[in-house]
Amino acid sequence: MSLFVTFEGPEGSGKSTQARLLYESLHARRFPVILTREPGGTRIGDLIRRIVLDLQHTEMAPTAEMLLFSAARAQLVSEVIRPYLEQGGIVLCDRYADSTFAYQGYGLGRDLAELRVITAAATGGLRPDITFYLDISAAEGLERKRRKGARSTGQRGANNDEWNRLDARELEYHQRVEAGYRELIAADPERWRVLDARQSIEALAEQIGAIVEPYLASITRLETVL
Amino acid sequence: MSLFVTFEGPEGSGKSTQARLLYESLHARRFPVILTREPGGTRIGDLIRRIVLDLQHTEMAPTAEMLLFSAARAQLVSEVIRPYLEQGGIVLCDRYADSTFAYQGYGLGRDLAELRVITAAATGGLRPDITFYLDISAAEGLERKRRKGARSTGQRGANNDEWNRLDARELEYHQRVEAGYRELIAADPERWRVLDARQSIEALAEQIGAIVEPYLASITRLETVL
Repeated sequence: MSLFVTFEGPEGSGKSTQARLLYESLHARRFPVILTREPGGTRIGDLIRRIVLDLQHTEMAPTAEMLLFSAARAQLVSEVIRPYLEQGGIVLCDRYADSTFAYQGYGLGRDLAELRVITAAATGGLRPDITFYLDISAAEGLERKRRKGARSTGQRGANNDEWNRLDARELEYHQRVEAGYRELIAADPERWRVLDARQSIEALAEQIGAIVEPYLASITRLETVL
Repeated sequence: MSLFVTFEGPEGSGKSTQARLLYESLHARRFPVILTREPGGTRIGDLIRRIVLDLQHTEMAPTAEMLLFSAARAQLVSEVIRPYLEQGGIVLCDRYADSTFAYQGYGLGRDLAELRVITAAATGGLRPDITFYLDISAAEGLERKRRKGARSTGQRGANNDEWNRLDARELEYHQRVEAGYRELIAADPERWRVLDARQSIEALAEQIGAIVEPYLASITRLETVL
């Protein structure tokens, strides 16, 4: 048996932290586990990521970008995720196909039926066993991000007008993304586990561990730690 | 008005030669015309082409490859083809979406409904006004290619066994591609113009020119040749 767990949620929800903590906990208990994130995770995926993120590529068409991300996902699933699951391992992924629906579909208004076909092609239909949704409102997630930014740069207060204007625009987009996640969760309630992201890091990690625990009975531990 | 013309056909059918001859003839008559080919034709498309063609990338998943080609097509349509058509120009393209259906769909057995959605996304639904099919049987096309190879290298005869074995395998695939083209033509007979590719280069060019001629009445010629 194997286990495929993904982490979703708005910016600032703390999902990357929780994915890493679960990875460390399972690894320490000698479970065969890998942690990956999109896009990237493979040599070809990293080359694709470089094209997509290159600041000089201002001419990139939105559809080309979406197809490049899908190509990177296809490579990650084929080269890393599926083989590891077939060996009986645990794969943790920080964002996966649901992010495409939430951000490109609901957030940017791209046709959902089209995204479903392209995502099914890219993943070969592979779906997570569990998807954690770290639940925080778009406004609160952005506020967390803002505070984090203020702490790390000390600059945010200096140019409040500009920041508020851009942030207001972002907020509407992020609210569409949040509403999109609600629809995805409602459509597939057995797979999703919605957790209150305003809890402490420790309390969240404990909840996640308790939800994952029953699935671990079918996973064979490693004989030796390398 | 504008005009979008694509060239399709098996390997060895001479379509690249005919696309170039039509380009030269229209260009000499001061029509605004560009000739392009897939994949590539843009800066981003060329970077994608480099990833796809890199001999070291033996691990590339077939789906990732298909999505990378589609991303390059999306960029070409968005950045080059559509803007040029919107300016009233003539775009000639050596292979376009039909090749994906013929080679990936019919040739490799990929799901056609899936390819339709991905192609519609990549092209934004842009279809050619005329598609020339340079008609030659898969066997004869391969034989032409073989003769060309023998002339240019002088090596083919030296290792006939190996060449025949590989070529026999290729022939079945190319026959599926050819049958696929027949289905595409039957489904959209107004767009396709089927030409006997066994004619001389000059006779073919003349036929193509005659078919294109009526469409040129709506195209505004360039005032000056740069």
